[in-house]
Parts: sequence; structure tokens; C-alpha cells
Amino acid sequence: MLILHNARVFTLDPQQPVATALAIEQDRIVAIGRETDILALSRPGTTVQNLDGKIILPGLTDAHIHLQHLALSLQRVDCATATRAECLRRVAERVTQTPPGQWILGHGWNQNEWPEGFGSAQDLDAIAPQHPVFLTAKSLHAAWVNSTALRLAGIGPDTPDPSEGRIQRDAQGHPTGILFEAAVDLVQRCIPQPEVEDVARAIRAALPILWQMGLTGVHDFDQRTCFMALQRLRGEGELKLRVLKSLPLDALDEAVVLGVGSGFGDAWLRIGGVKLFADGALGPQTAAMFEPYLGREDYGLLFLEAEQVFEIGRKAGEVGLSLAVHAIGDRANAEVLTGLEQLRQWEHDTGKPHLRHRIEHVQILRPQDIGRLAQANVTASVQPIHATSDMEMADRYWGERSRYAYAYRTLLGQGTRLAFGSDAPVESPNPFWGIHAAVTRRRLDGTPGPEGWYPQERVTVQQAIEAYTLGAAYAAGLENCLGSLRSGYYADLIVLDRNPWEMPAEDLHQLHPVATMVGGEWVWQTEEM
Amino acid sequence: MLILHNARVFTLDPQQPVATALAIEQDRIVAIGRETDILALSRPGTTVQNLDGKIILPGLTDAHIHLQHLALSLQRVDCATATRAECLRRVAERVTQTPPGQWILGHGWNQNEWPEGFGSAQDLDAIAPQHPVFLTAKSLHAAWVNSTALRLAGIGPDTPDPSEGRIQRDAQGHPTGILFEAAVDLVQRCIPQPEVEDVARAIRAALPILWQMGLTGVHDFDQRTCFMALQRLRGEGELKLRVLKSLPLDALDEAVVLGVGSGFGDAWLRIGGVKLFADGALGPQTAAMFEPYLGREDYGLLFLEAEQVFEIGRKAGEVGLSLAVHAIGDRANAEVLTGLEQLRQWEHDTGKPHLRHRIEHVQILRPQDIGRLAQANVTASVQPIHATSDMEMADRYWGERSRYAYAYRTLLGQGTRLAFGSDAPVESPNPFWGIHAAVTRRRLDGTPGPEGWYPQERVTVQQAIEAYTLGAAYAAGLENCLGSLRSGYYADLIVLDRNPWEMPAEDLHQLHPVATMVGGEWVWQTEEM
Repeated sequence: MLILHNARVFTLDPQQPVATALAIEQDRIVAIGRETDILALSRPGTTVQNLDGKIILPGLTDAHIHLQHLALSLQRVDCATATRAECLRRVAERVTQTPPGQWILGHGWNQNEWPEGFGSAQDLDAIAPQHPVFLTAKSLHAAWVNSTALRLAGIGPDTPDPSEGRIQRDAQGHPTGILFEAAVDLVQRCIPQPEVEDVARAIRAALPILWQMGLTGVHDFDQRTCFMALQRLRGEGELKLRVLKSLPLDALDEAVVLGVGSGFGDAWLRIGGVKLFADGALGPQTAAMFEPYLGREDYGLLFLEAEQVFEIGRKAGEVGLSLAVHAIGDRANAEVLTGLEQLRQWEHDTGKPHLRHRIEHVQILRPQDIGRLAQANVTASVQPIHATSDMEMADRYWGERSRYAYAYRTLLGQGTRLAFGSDAPVESPNPFWGIHAAVTRRRLDGTPGPEGWYPQERVTVQQAIEAYTLGAAYAAGLENCLGSLRSGYYADLIVLDRNPWEMPAEDLHQLHPVATMVGGEWVWQTEEM
Repeated sequence: MLILHNARVFTLDPQQPVATALAIEQDRIVAIGRETDILALSRPGTTVQNLDGKIILPGLTDAHIHLQHLALSLQRVDCATATRAECLRRVAERVTQTPPGQWILGHGWNQNEWPEGFGSAQDLDAIAPQHPVFLTAKSLHAAWVNSTALRLAGIGPDTPDPSEGRIQRDAQGHPTGILFEAAVDLVQRCIPQPEVEDVARAIRAALPILWQMGLTGVHDFDQRTCFMALQRLRGEGELKLRVLKSLPLDALDEAVVLGVGSGFGDAWLRIGGVKLFADGALGPQTAAMFEPYLGREDYGLLFLEAEQVFEIGRKAGEVGLSLAVHAIGDRANAEVLTGLEQLRQWEHDTGKPHLRHRIEHVQILRPQDIGRLAQANVTASVQPIHATSDMEMADRYWGERSRYAYAYRTLLGQGTRLAFGSDAPVESPNPFWGIHAAVTRRRLDGTPGPEGWYPQERVTVQQAIEAYTLGAAYAAGLENCLGSLRSGYYADLIVLDRNPWEMPAEDLHQLHPVATMVGGEWVWQTEEM
């Protein structure tokens, strides 16, 4: 048994919001409460740890992450640079370290942040004549490639745009090296796929980075290889992270034949929902809107209508699989909500279980749609760091509609369940950056000023922490064993040396745990512990 | 905390084979050892239970069961009668209780045990002119149906035999109402399938029957609906039974696309291997043999050759799925062993994990093949009750070859891992009947005499219990948390008021637990506790 005492434990359990000590047996909390009561449980062999008044919180869960992408991206050229020139310098450096013919992979550029704007294939050809180069945008909805990569992918002047994608071309119709949406896949599919073992190794290396940030769980949206790698790590007892694994839509038929439903698995690795895409994204202006993007006639791309969401949901529901639907634009969100409302009616009419459906991103809603998530008990799986990263784009492309973009406070006011995440590697997975963004609506550099962007939508520290704990646990169907600190629950917790409720909100992003425990085991400890 | 003390605990842990007390916290054993040491752990709120010197063993696992079939069969007409006439009487009784047009289902007949031999469609027509009747043989490899059922299935004089099956016909070529192997499916597929909810309800009702027998786990070989029903029970916290769930071969492609491997799940419900069929069975003489059945020219039916076993195993192995191959005849076992040996070589050459492959039944081997299971580390998943049920058939059809039929002692002598099961509902799932059969090689009625059938193949009580505990846990990849009683292991155990090591072997089948605990919870207790 392990007893942690002399702590300020914020349990998130409404029955007992605050405690000073807890006792842990193997992977679970067996008692939590007052100092004297818990210390009395000590017996020979019990380890008693004095926390010197430090804070304990439940471990945090990132409810939207791409774990394989994140883990592999930690090995890629970091293209999140201030200028295009700096990005090219980094690529050139990697080229010198890589045998000719092997792919140079990079990630993180955003032409909106570069004074030079979009790069071209020729820019890359100049530094990498013998290597195919593939650099994904921060949004993952675009890629920048060189001529070798275009040639390997068979992309030339006569190549038609794929449906749901676009090849950027110059005035003569020649591909420029920039690819959007489905066109990215034309090159991506030429890159040798990482093996399960490669991905398992990369995830293993990424775990300490997540623990250091205070993450004890994630909801992953990567695919089959990631799932297999996670099974391998779990089988070897190395997956000290609670993973809810979504299934891609193109595996739905297979899941139905097998009869695998949401919740199958264990508290380490568990099947989540089926991931669908209802639209594109804000950056490339492919999110589906009711009204055009400002100054354009473009409404974005709607991939799924309500009826399709319902039909897919009904098929998945037959085997107990929930839906997790990507919807960013107001039109996409409205369509998905209509589909999910029909699905709730079907669940009700057929006596089927009421599944944990969710919408991923929910970036902009019409005012009249905001209450619909709570009414249909659909979790809003949102990424507060997007609010501040995207604010300028949102103002530019959506204008005044942005009043109800990233509208977390209004959603909460309607009774909506929020689950916070990062969409890493699109953004950093650091949950304290997310808490900071949600509470202040400001970037790390303080922009756009003290009040933040649409300050009416700021949430409290308590609400932000709940969305990373209770909200994520509910979305995973694990609220009976995770998300708060209670007797019988898994001992997943973090230790902080500053109290997030009592510090300046603008410093919240600086918080980092001095220790992280997963399943009763300290997986991360600083010298302060 | 719960402390059980003043017990005789046979732990099956070689480091500490005997203990007198153990402490349980939530679902796991947290300490096991000497009375004084364990009682010293008691603290306020601890429940201390005195077992008055009773025996504690690890809970038993049936390593081969058809849970859905068993659960539904408990609701069917019991056709395991001494005479055909008695079977017909029972069917007639059920007909009076059933609305016309609904199916009458029964199970358990064996024409070899009936003085009248096989029945006919006309026998059933006389008592059930308005109901389709479908009665499966004890072996599940044959069925007896009436004319209404034949008509619904479209089976007439011109219907060809399906490949891998046979429609019994009279001298004029008319179907008699008896169907073998794949021909059974022609009728079975016309019976409305039970819904997931029906199966879940039937399994829920069957659980107490299994607990009363001392079973805390099973390895199930039923299919999709069963899997879904088990997920539902698990989700509702009602699956107080450890289930290893095999996947049917026809779902292999889907499992590969999803990337689901053996071991995915939790300690309640977990993916096992892919179930293949290499041959038929002894009763209908469809098990594949090297030499013909006695007095016939028939070698049985071989469904898979070594190369096919290897190819399927390689495909499954790519996603970490093991194989569980049904093989009864000596030819089938030899083919499967050759395939599994190739698979072991492939695992070795490619650095893939060494999976928990197994052969189901292993009923007869050539002497030269007996050592091959141990050499390839293939578990023999065998059903000792088959040895005594089948002994007369084995003598009649296999003659002297039966020396190495159900040859458990010889297999153990070679170092083979055994996992014992029942094949229920083919046989009773009572593990003490299995232990009795394995230790005595006699039927419950004492036949064939004090020495038993091929007494060289009797195993010890210790070996029999190990095959229901350690052997089953190893086959499931759960030997680190189940199968023996150790600190950190799940608290799955049974309490006996007689010591199986110190009682007359011929009484072993009379043993029944006075209490059964699964995951730290008493799921079954008699007044003696």
C-alpha cells in the first residue's frame, strides 16, 4: 500500500471535493479523505509519502490526439518556423544526414505565418535534388513537396484534381508543389508505411513527454497501425497511458462483422467510436459553412449530410459502436446534429443503448444550434488551443460569425458536456496550454490583450480541468473508474506545486506536474517530489 | 479488505504451494501465506472469514466451451435419453406447449446409445405435424429433423449433398430426416437466429450453473452473437466469468483489417485465437485418419492441409492472432502439427511474437506425433470426459490405435501443456466430471471397471487440476494474473469441503464447491459457508 498525505487533493468528486490524503493499493485508490483516517490504514510494508502541502489532481486526458502522428512527428523536421527560409534551412540540414533516395519528412508549416507565404517544389529541389521531400502543414490538410516526390506520385500537369482535393497549379497548369486535402494522399501513399514495431517504438519514446505534461490518458484518432502498436505496448505492460481508440469509418464493415462495440478492451486500451469526417478545416477554408467565407463565394466542403450520419450511426449502433464526427463549420455541425438527433430517436425506439456520441472540434455554430448538443447528450470534443491559434483566421474568414466560434462558455451554459483535447500534432498536447487558452482566450504571448478573444467565452479553471478529466472520462464511458479521485477508482493523478485556482490565469500555461502517477505507479517525478 | 483464514489453500504456485490464509482487496489477492502474517493485516473495516479448515483452490476454467449453445440448450428439449421413444415423448410434450409454426429445438441424442438406432422424419411427423422440428445430436455433427423442417429448408430427393456434408437417404433416395456435418446447416440456417438480447439473457441465466460447478472462466468457441452478448454483459458489470473468446475463421479478414490481435480485451472478456476446423469427429466417423475406420474403407474428412494451416496462421500472425485448430483424427493432428511447426519457424525468422497456438481435442495421435506438440509449444486443449464417453466408439472404429487416443499421460510425459475443457453442451461442463474422467478413465457408472480404459493414460489429481487452472491460464496468455493464487493475482477461487487429493478417486465427480469467488466477490455460496 502507498499512502500520500499532507496534500491538497482536489478530487472532482462532488461528494467530497477536497481531501488531504489517499491510500493506493496496486492500481487503485482504496481510501481517500482526512489525514488521520487515511494514515490509520498504514500497516507494515506501507509506503507513506508526505506531499508537503502540494496539490493533487486527477490525471488529465487529451480527448483528441493523433498519437502515431505525434510520436512519429517528434522524429520529423520541425517546420513550425517563423519564416520559410528557416524551414528550408532545417530541411537542408536533414538532407545532409540522410542517404539519397530516402524520404525527408517534415511537419508544422503554416503559410499564413510566413512572410514569404506558400513555398514551391523548386525551393525544395534546390536543396534536395536527390531526396523526395514531403512536408505536411500544421493543419494536416495540406502538404508541400518537391519535384522528386511529385514524380514518384505520378503528379504532372495532366493529373486531374481528386474529388475532395486540389493540386495547386501555376498559370501554365503545372503543379506548384502544394497539395490540399485529398491531393495530399497522392504523395502520402507513396511513402513507405511505418511498421508496427516502428510506431510502437515511437510511442514508447513519446510517453514520458506526455506524462511530463500531466497527461495520463488520450483519445486517439489514428488508425490501424497505431492500434496494433498500442496492443503490442499493452501486451508488454508498457502502455502506462489510458487510450480510447477510435475506429476509422472504412473499418466499420469489418467491426460489424466481428461484432466489436465501443467499450471493448480494458482500462488501458479500449474501443471508442467510429470516426467520420463531415467537412474540412478552417485554415484551408474547407470547413462547411451556411454562408460563404468572407470575401469569397466558397461555402467549404460538406462530406456528409444528416441522413448519411444517421445511416452510418444506425449500422454502427447495431453492434454498439458510437460515433465521433469531425465537424468544424456551422453547416457541418448542423447536419451532424440532425443526424445524431435521428440516431437518438432510433436508439430510443429500438431500445438500443444510448451511446456516447460526440462531435470533434465543433468550431463554429449558428446561435440556434448551440443548445442541440446538450439536448441530444452529444459531447463537444473541443481543442481550446485552436481558439487562440485560429482567432485571426476566424476573424478573417468568418467575421462576426466568430462570436459563436469555440463558444465553450455558451455550450457549458446550455448543459453541454465538454471534453478538451489538443489535436496534437496539429497543436502541442500540453493540457496546461489548453487550460490557459480556455480560461484566458489569449495566446501564450498575451495576444490579443488582457480580456482575450471573445472574453464572454472564457471558462473557469474548474470548468477547464473538468473538461480534461470528468468530461473525457464520460466520453469514454469510464466515469465509474476514471476522471475523479474516489475509492475504487484508478490511481491516475498528477502533483502540482502551484494551485491553479489561486494563481494568475495568464501563468496557467507554465504549470507542469512535479509528478505523474498512472495506475498507482509514479511514471514521472522531478526532484521536487 | 477481506481475509480468508484457517483454510487449506492449494495455491498451484510452486514458490509457495500451500498457505492457510489470504487477503483480498477489491478484485485481487494482496497477500497470501501464514495465518498470523495475514491476520496481522486486518484493520478497521476488514471482513475476516474463518474457513474452518476447508480447502481453497484457484477457480477452474473450462478451456473449450460453446457458451451460447450451452446457454440456449438449457432451454431446449433434452434428447439425451436412454431410448428414442423417450426422446419422442419429450418432443411431443413440448409440442403441446408451443404455438403451431414455431420451431421445436432439441439436443443431445446419440443413436449409438439408443436400442432403436437413428430416428426418421416420419417418427417426428407423427407427433409434430404442424411444427418444424430440429434435434441436434450430442456430437453437434448430425441433426434429426421432420418433414416440415425439410420442406422449409428445401431439401428433397433431388437435393445434392453439400460438400463436406451428407443427407441420409432411403433406398429410393428420399431424405430420411438425418443430416450429417454441413448438411445440418441446410436446416439450421432456416431457424430464426436468436437476438443478442436473447443470448445475453440465456448466458446470464447459465452463469450460476457454471459457478456452482466451480467454473470461474471459460474459453468460448461460439461466434458473433455470443461475443456481442458477452460484451453487453461485461458492459453492465454482469459478466462475472473470465471469457477467452475465439474468432471464427470467416472473420479473419475483418480482424486483419481492424488489426485486432489475441489478448485484446480485459481479464473478463479477451480475444483468443482464430478457430479452424481440420476435420470432423469420431461419432460420425468424419475425423481424418491415416488408416481407414475399422471395417470400412473410409478415412474421414480432412478439411485443411498443413500448408493451409500455415498460410492462415501467417495471415493471422501478422496482426498477432493465434490459432486454435480443431483436429480429432491422427491425420488431421499430423497435418495441423506440420502447419504449426512451419508457423513457429516463420515467427522465429520474422521476429514475430511466439503466440499461444493450440489444438482443440487432439483425440488420437500416431505414436511418432505425440512429442510434436511439446516441441512446438502447442497446447493440447482436450476434454477428458470425451475419453470415457467415446471409449466404446474409439474401440469400435479405431481399434488398437486407441492406445494413443486421449493420451493425456503420454502427452504430459513429453512436456505438453494440457488445458482441460468439456466441449459443453456436447458434454456437461462440470469440471469435476472431467477431473474424474482424467484421473480414473472411468465413466460415472464405473465402467469399464476399476482400472479404467487404457489406465496407462490416467493422470494424477494434481495434473488434472493444473490443466483446469495453470494450463488454461497459459493458453489464454493470462498466467501472470490467473490460474494460481498469488499476491497480485485476481481473487478467483473455489472452496471445497473435501480434499480432492485425499479422497477416493472414484468419488471425484461428486465434488462441488461450497463457495465460488470471482474477482473478489462470492458469486456462489452454500449454507455450509
